[in-house]
Amino acid sequence: MAENKSWVLMVTAQTPTNIAVIKYWGKRDESLILPINDSISVTLDPSHLCTTTTVAVSPDFTHDRMWLNGKEISLSGGRYQNCLREIRSRASDVEDEKKGIKIAKRDWENLHLHIASYNNFPTAAGLASSAAGFACLVYSLAKLMNVKEDNSHLSAIARQGSGSACRSLYGGFVKWIMGKDDNGNDSIAVQLVDEKHWDELVILIAVVSSRQKETSSTSGMRETVETSPLVLHRAKEVVPKRVVEMEEAVKSRNFPAFARLTCSDSNQFHAVCLDTSPPIFYMNDTSHRIISCVEKWNRSEGTPQVAYTFDAGPNAVLIARNRKVAALLLQRLLFHFPPQSGADLNSYIVGDKSVLMDAGIQDLKDVEALPPPPEIKDNVPTQKFKGDVSYFICTRPGRGPVLLTEESQALLNPETGLPK
Amino acid sequence: MAENKSWVLMVTAQTPTNIAVIKYWGKRDESLILPINDSISVTLDPSHLCTTTTVAVSPDFTHDRMWLNGKEISLSGGRYQNCLREIRSRASDVEDEKKGIKIAKRDWENLHLHIASYNNFPTAAGLASSAAGFACLVYSLAKLMNVKEDNSHLSAIARQGSGSACRSLYGGFVKWIMGKDDNGNDSIAVQLVDEKHWDELVILIAVVSSRQKETSSTSGMRETVETSPLVLHRAKEVVPKRVVEMEEAVKSRNFPAFARLTCSDSNQFHAVCLDTSPPIFYMNDTSHRIISCVEKWNRSEGTPQVAYTFDAGPNAVLIARNRKVAALLLQRLLFHFPPQSGADLNSYIVGDKSVLMDAGIQDLKDVEALPPPPEIKDNVPTQKFKGDVSYFICTRPGRGPVLLTEESQALLNPETGLPK
Repeated sequence: MAENKSWVLMVTAQTPTNIAVIKYWGKRDESLILPINDSISVTLDPSHLCTTTTVAVSPDFTHDRMWLNGKEISLSGGRYQNCLREIRSRASDVEDEKKGIKIAKRDWENLHLHIASYNNFPTAAGLASSAAGFACLVYSLAKLMNVKEDNSHLSAIARQGSGSACRSLYGGFVKWIMGKDDNGNDSIAVQLVDEKHWDELVILIAVVSSRQKETSSTSGMRETVETSPLVLHRAKEVVPKRVVEMEEAVKSRNFPAFARLTCSDSNQFHAVCLDTSPPIFYMNDTSHRIISCVEKWNRSEGTPQVAYTFDAGPNAVLIARNRKVAALLLQRLLFHFPPQSGADLNSYIVGDKSVLMDAGIQDLKDVEALPPPPEIKDNVPTQKFKGDVSYFICTRPGRGPVLLTEESQALLNPETGLPK
Repeated sequence: MAENKSWVLMVTAQTPTNIAVIKYWGKRDESLILPINDSISVTLDPSHLCTTTTVAVSPDFTHDRMWLNGKEISLSGGRYQNCLREIRSRASDVEDEKKGIKIAKRDWENLHLHIASYNNFPTAAGLASSAAGFACLVYSLAKLMNVKEDNSHLSAIARQGSGSACRSLYGGFVKWIMGKDDNGNDSIAVQLVDEKHWDELVILIAVVSSRQKETSSTSGMRETVETSPLVLHRAKEVVPKRVVEMEEAVKSRNFPAFARLTCSDSNQFHAVCLDTSPPIFYMNDTSHRIISCVEKWNRSEGTPQVAYTFDAGPNAVLIARNRKVAALLLQRLLFHFPPQSGADLNSYIVGDKSVLMDAGIQDLKDVEALPPPPEIKDNVPTQKFKGDVSYFICTRPGRGPVLLTEESQALLNPETGLPK
């Protein structure tokens, strides 16, 4: 270790969030976070949804500390402790010649860490912030500590922070293999295809306003496993076949099969939540209306144009088969769910604004002028639900974790190791 | 047959509706209406929810005709035709000495019928009007035609009009045995206990406002059987055990077991609807809120006070363990779901108004003065949802079909055989 000299060594990384298209719901081991079935996800473009984490080590640090979105939080929880312990146990010698820093493998046990993490999207919006967060924590610490394991091995550590975090170690489409071992070493994520494989897809997220307090996914899935008479049938009989079919659909870019599987599996996940005692409701009337809108359109086109999937909350994640479909989808969504009067369109549609341009919408007047979608029958009164969607995020499948090497991107001060 | 003289022979009957506590959802034979599992229901007091039907025969009638709630409807549908054919084939000799009418068994094939039916509750409210309606049609025709079969045999005919109609041939708690025969002869209803067996129970129905067009239960259950990967597991593995447990709970008046089974089975029925492709949503946010209110109260009491069940629509059927609990339940429901400002309390709570008295509520001011239920934690803002419930019906378990012998209760004119 560098002697008699104060120093701070830092690494900053950016990690995407992901959305499951074959759902993870239910653990066979609560503390190791081992699931009852495989799951498959698509990684979302980190330009629009990601976590950035800076981890720092210094002999001056007196204890491990963490700041999330600028606010100090406790690291005493088992999930953080598991990740820190597992990463520390794999640390190697680190040398920074420029700064004259040398850390031996054995030193890591006695050195303390500072961690600062920031989500570029609202943490409370139910957008899998913990997945990106734990993936980024593990990835950045692994880089700082010169951990030699590949991302699949790191995924087994991130998994112990938050199950779905393991799928954020890769871009594109990712499979979390449930594994068989009691120690969880084979419960890892693998990349099915990278983000370039199916780059036509466009993803629209409707962040749905909700007045209900939601059941956390941790307690929700525990209650489902304990009380639902259907969930094990799902995990053992239904999901294994769907995983095989989904892999095939993704590899062959078969959108109709992909959409059918994605929608069915989202609905079945919510079905087993409803089959839980007491029942868990994550979707609300707005979620149901978005599903009805997509189902009606898909049916009228004869073949699916859009897939939908909902996680443990009312937000809809809509996957359009290509840019043209995405523009038509956005028109439909804005027709049914216009912003509040006087809202700023620019903050109602965030992310990749080019979808808005493709949809021919420049201001609120264009939204008001949208005609009813042709698949709505004339005898059905068209309904508008102003204010039921908080905002939309336009994005696409994206890449896995990356290191950010510009010091300006670090969240900690390189001198003090404290948040900037 | 009486000769050279015009005559009309009439019978009027009243038949209750019923609500399943172990649900029927899915047919193994579409035209005979044979279910994929047994179901169990409670018959509702006909004072508040029933169908009255008058059936008449006359040599002057030129064809079979029917009026529902005063409006003539077609009898050409297969379901009506099946019921009429099955009943006619079982007709016997009929003699009315007073009127000098004699109808021989063989005459029924050539005589035409007039049928008038009336529901004492809104047909469109999703309150199983077809169950009461077909049961009443079959029951009244059987009496008119001197059909000698008992109610269980009649239930197999009513079943061919509407599956759940077979359970309206008895009062109290009723089991529809799915049967094994291809011809459906053993798919019949049997009474488990009569309406006096468990007369403490009080039933509150929240008729929930809905803007959504609902999937009919006929097409809904067909789509579930065709597309849900969970429904057969439910029918084969889950329901048979629940039926045994429910029979035991009903016979021993074990309210906690009854409530647990009723709620779980309602939720599982809606779960397999959600597992259908495209998914079927019958419950809406109001339904979910009513469930949450009941679940929270039940949990706070340590043992269930109220069971809930929902059919193919958003209306909540709430079964309170006794009158005292029903009053406390009504207070909670009125706290969360007060009537629209200026509404008439008398038409907001219909049926057995004594529950309202027990709840200490005489006018709208009493509703406004209701305190939040104690089980709501202080840190949770209490929410009110004015107008989300259209009205409440207070009722109880009730009796099976009865004949109405007063001529004033008939819906057809005894001279003309036309609606009064």
